[in-house]
Amino acid sequence: MAPEMDQFYRSTMAIYKSILEQFNPALENLVYLGNNYLRAFHALSEAAEVYFSAIQKIGEQALQSSTSQILGEILVQMSDTQRHLNSDLEVVVQTFHGDLLQHMEKNTKLDMQFIKDSRQHYEIEYRHRAANLEKCMSELWRMERKRDKNVREMKESVNRLHAQMQTFVSESQRAAELEEKRRYRFLAEKHLLLSNTFLQFFGRARGTLQNRVLLWKEQTLSRAPTVRRTPREGQLPSAPQSARAGSDGVGGGLRRPAEAVLGPRRLAALLTVTRRGNP
Amino acid sequence: MAPEMDQFYRSTMAIYKSILEQFNPALENLVYLGNNYLRAFHALSEAAEVYFSAIQKIGEQALQSSTSQILGEILVQMSDTQRHLNSDLEVVVQTFHGDLLQHMEKNTKLDMQFIKDSRQHYEIEYRHRAANLEKCMSELWRMERKRDKNVREMKESVNRLHAQMQTFVSESQRAAELEEKRRYRFLAEKHLLLSNTFLQFFGRARGTLQNRVLLWKEQTLSRAPTVRRTPREGQLPSAPQSARAGSDGVGGGLRRPAEAVLGPRRLAALLTVTRRGNP
Repeated sequence: MAPEMDQFYRSTMAIYKSILEQFNPALENLVYLGNNYLRAFHALSEAAEVYFSAIQKIGEQALQSSTSQILGEILVQMSDTQRHLNSDLEVVVQTFHGDLLQHMEKNTKLDMQFIKDSRQHYEIEYRHRAANLEKCMSELWRMERKRDKNVREMKESVNRLHAQMQTFVSESQRAAELEEKRRYRFLAEKHLLLSNTFLQFFGRARGTLQNRVLLWKEQTLSRAPTVRRTPREGQLPSAPQSARAGSDGVGGGLRRPAEAVLGPRRLAALLTVTRRGNP
Repeated sequence: MAPEMDQFYRSTMAIYKSILEQFNPALENLVYLGNNYLRAFHALSEAAEVYFSAIQKIGEQALQSSTSQILGEILVQMSDTQRHLNSDLEVVVQTFHGDLLQHMEKNTKLDMQFIKDSRQHYEIEYRHRAANLEKCMSELWRMERKRDKNVREMKESVNRLHAQMQTFVSESQRAAELEEKRRYRFLAEKHLLLSNTFLQFFGRARGTLQNRVLLWKEQTLSRAPTVRRTPREGQLPSAPQSARAGSDGVGGGLRRPAEAVLGPRRLAALLTVTRRGNP
């Protein structure tokens, strides 16, 4: 066989080999890893749900208090918002499961057999055509030696078979290349879909949080009690941590109510002094 | 003791009881749940990393192919982007760990003892003052019966003690209320910080993805090969799945290259017919 045809044959077979031995096993592995990824999503969603349910309960306790109803409302709203984001993230998870992993799994199973068949068919067809061409060429050679009267016809036939063989190997190669490209495109398109679903989720999540965070900030600020500073008062044991909350960046302007308030111990100490001053 | 003072005493004690028996155990539980939440975050981050490393490897295979270099680049970029988002999410995780859970854990430990001490101090002080007032009132009653010359002075003293007691119970109540409010505020401020950190992350993530998704879409579209439709051609086994990628929403305009391309089997079938037609 002519070297350029052999070259075509080998590179077409290499493409099938790459789809069979690289792409499809990689896709199979991706489905496995994707299912792990999904499980991690569900676990995160569950952990968030449990955490924010606990926040909600604390919020409900605050709602029942005489002092912290607004803070209770904020805590309950934070919990609701998280639940909302969680159920919105579920859309991403559904897309990932339904539109990526399930398709990828189905595809890889069907594809292994399809590509094996295509490769085998190509191999048989190529060998058949090559053998046929060889046979006709030998026949032509034999006829030329014998000066057969049909040699011109045979020559034409060999030329036609040769041209057909050339068309066959180059079109087969192009077809195999397209099969390969199509599989990478499939993967890229699927992950473009995933990226877009994430993008939409991030946009919605940002929109949801943006107004609420502003509102919570305002509410937390506006409800901070006006305080009288008592500079000599000792730091309460839990004050440094609570007070630091105000410098965490979010509530930069939040006041430190408790630090400046007459704690019961300080109050008691003052009153003890007063009492001792009296009979 | 006067009923309204007893009322003050009981409601102040109820506030301390609520902080000790409801708020602080709830905060302790929240730290535990928060650590679970954090672990779930790390697990998700790890699963995403493993998944997108696999995508990267497939992308690198595509880069080495003759047909799918652009698709390979897109896949590698998708992997890089996910890695970028992952490391950005780490900021949220760090805030959650360092600014919420650690503070909450430290606070709840310190706070239990502080509130117990405050409550005990208030209890002792209240009983001491109440006993003192009772004693002076009995003494006044005894002096009035004896028509003691110091009865006027004693009356003033009882009135003064009574007024001080009133100030003491109402200010102690206010102090306890502020302690309660301060704890709910601490929690709300911390979660406002967390919400804000999430908000910033969503904003950045959206910004990062927005341009890239557009670019990937354009690249995937522009590289789709121009195809000749062959209407009678049978569906290839894996074509329906691949082809559906185009109708998934993201790549709504993506073409279906493979479906319309002469597959090797179809090509072989056509050539077989041609061959059989010839001697």
